[in-house]
Amino acid sequence: MKPTSYTLDTTFAALADPTRRAILARLASGECSVTELAEPFEMTMPAVSKHLRVLERAGLIAQGREAQWRPCRIKAAPLKEVAEWAEQYRDIWEQRLDRLDIYLQELTAKEKKHGRRKRSK
Amino acid sequence: MKPTSYTLDTTFAALADPTRRAILARLASGECSVTELAEPFEMTMPAVSKHLRVLERAGLIAQGREAQWRPCRIKAAPLKEVAEWAEQYRDIWEQRLDRLDIYLQELTAKEKKHGRRKRSK
Repeated sequence: MKPTSYTLDTTFAALADPTRRAILARLASGECSVTELAEPFEMTMPAVSKHLRVLERAGLIAQGREAQWRPCRIKAAPLKEVAEWAEQYRDIWEQRLDRLDIYLQELTAKEKKHGRRKRSK
Repeated sequence: MKPTSYTLDTTFAALADPTRRAILARLASGECSVTELAEPFEMTMPAVSKHLRVLERAGLIAQGREAQWRPCRIKAAPLKEVAEWAEQYRDIWEQRLDRLDIYLQELTAKEKKHGRRKRSK
């Protein structure tokens, strides 16, 4: 298995949880301690620590090694990989939206035509 | 839980597997049958079908209902959501890369200075 593939596996698995995504969102505005991170979630410290371990293993956060205050910070490099991976499919979602757009325009045109016919009767 | 959050959960979970990502890559070039999809993976049909069910539940593929040939096609809308979600963090990864760039420039400048000093001795 390629290393990139392995990274995407662990990154996607780590991101498949709303608490972990919320932790990343909080860390996007700056470093903070595990206690500060735990506050909004009404979770036990071990539960938060478990989520942090998953994020750390996926390379999405790093935790300081200071004895008292172990600040967590976000590491966005895997998120860049996620964005780039998803971007490969941009053509497909844009084509779909283009087709939907054409369909809606045709529908509107038909309705207008139909409306005019009705009024002209 | 918000519906978007729920969708991202199932999308990310579905994408955390290299076979499922390879299936999406294959479908990006056009519809194909389950048999055709199974070929490159050396997997049993039930194993492939299981992956397809996960992708279908996540809204990433749709499967035709024709009795004989049930063509699979990619549905890229959840991938658009993934790209948009990751894009929120672009500032962070670009800042990091900017900082790395500045650091490397400083390092190169220092080395040049050092090199000149060495040569002038």
